[in-house]
Amino acid sequence: MASYLVTGASRGIGLELVKQLGKLPADQVSIVFAATRTKEPSAGLQQVIDASDGKIAHILLPITDKAGIAAAVPQLEARLGDKGLDVLVNNAGVMGYTPGGTAAMTDLRETFEVNVEAVHNTTVALLPLVQKSKLKKVINISTTMGSMALAANYKFAPTPAYKITKAALNMLTVQYAQDFAQQGVTFLAVSPGWLKTDLGSQMADLEVDVGVKEVVRIIQENGIESSGKFLNIRVPGWENKVPNAYDGKSSPW
Amino acid sequence: MASYLVTGASRGIGLELVKQLGKLPADQVSIVFAATRTKEPSAGLQQVIDASDGKIAHILLPITDKAGIAAAVPQLEARLGDKGLDVLVNNAGVMGYTPGGTAAMTDLRETFEVNVEAVHNTTVALLPLVQKSKLKKVINISTTMGSMALAANYKFAPTPAYKITKAALNMLTVQYAQDFAQQGVTFLAVSPGWLKTDLGSQMADLEVDVGVKEVVRIIQENGIESSGKFLNIRVPGWENKVPNAYDGKSSPW
Repeated sequence: MASYLVTGASRGIGLELVKQLGKLPADQVSIVFAATRTKEPSAGLQQVIDASDGKIAHILLPITDKAGIAAAVPQLEARLGDKGLDVLVNNAGVMGYTPGGTAAMTDLRETFEVNVEAVHNTTVALLPLVQKSKLKKVINISTTMGSMALAANYKFAPTPAYKITKAALNMLTVQYAQDFAQQGVTFLAVSPGWLKTDLGSQMADLEVDVGVKEVVRIIQENGIESSGKFLNIRVPGWENKVPNAYDGKSSPW
Repeated sequence: MASYLVTGASRGIGLELVKQLGKLPADQVSIVFAATRTKEPSAGLQQVIDASDGKIAHILLPITDKAGIAAAVPQLEARLGDKGLDVLVNNAGVMGYTPGGTAAMTDLRETFEVNVEAVHNTTVALLPLVQKSKLKKVINISTTMGSMALAANYKFAPTPAYKITKAALNMLTVQYAQDFAQQGVTFLAVSPGWLKTDLGSQMADLEVDVGVKEVVRIIQENGIESSGKFLNIRVPGWENKVPNAYDGKSSPW
């Protein structure tokens, strides 16, 4: 009976995540908070909520606004009681295109604010709830595009600010994992694959439900022994592909 | 007859770098610009300039202020003529302490602005001068503390924002290296070692001149074939030490 909160649940990976988490058997999920920066859920999210039998609840969580995050905490506490929040999924993120190359990049700071600083602020605010829970997991949705070791594979993608900030997110994950290992809080960086979403485009490798199913599996199968790892999804037939080897292993940094 | 510009030259590694570069034989160095964010050089820098026989020149370069950087460019052009700037060393950086652990970190954005965004803005502004030169090198002073792979070695250091932003700086370096490989511009991330400076403290491993001598060697010995690498200094006797194996090799990311 685990509780989940997923940021960026309006669309894409976040929306599919709350949908799939909401369909887990009743002994695996109590409630899924679909967090968005908008006061009202998107039409897509509203549909998912309506079909969820009360399992999925919308919550306003403007992750780039500390006061806004703070305002959500008492609402979460009221719903969760003393059981805490089992799994926080920091999924919300942005990716801008810089076709002119790295020297033309103008979105570095704003990308950092959403992809790293907002994840930090959300984690700080919700960590007391996570620490009260049974599972105690914080999942940061990252990408193998944020891997320096794999950079040659992603040269084609004109998204330098995304790559740079996801590398930073990976180190943020590692730092939290080190600090909270003794207290049994698991922090994972998870690469969900290149999925057909608004962000990923229709050129992407995989349907969104395929990658998200793997993210759900990774969340469920990995505990404190995996904390601080950077985990890739596993999709049969992709193990040896370049750029995206969906081999289910730890990605190099 | 190469020209150099070093940011953060008021003290520490930057000051020692301009000092050592200024002492290179006349056939190896024409001019060294000691760039600082202050209008006047520090006392230490003034001494080094006075002893340099005109080889070292101070320049105001407020790296967190785009307009301020832009104002320096015509001054550099006037001094360099059509020869361009051979080597830009992005050395200026900040490191704050967060003894309360990652969840207590409040300096993430300001650290990112100096350690990553300012490096990007400085590079963008000076790259046309670098591209005009013969050597065409951009050196980003990084640290093995920014390595996820080595993070366990640096658990003792309460500097999460520094680690996170240096990981981002490494990816920035990789992105530039990819983009400018065809044009023959070399980008290196160099870890200078843990040196006895104001930033490094007196607990550090090495005297500042020891690490900086190695940085100068790395700058001189590495060209386009090394572009995009993350290079460590080499100090005999330290090859197998933890946390700092100064083995002269590429550091894992």
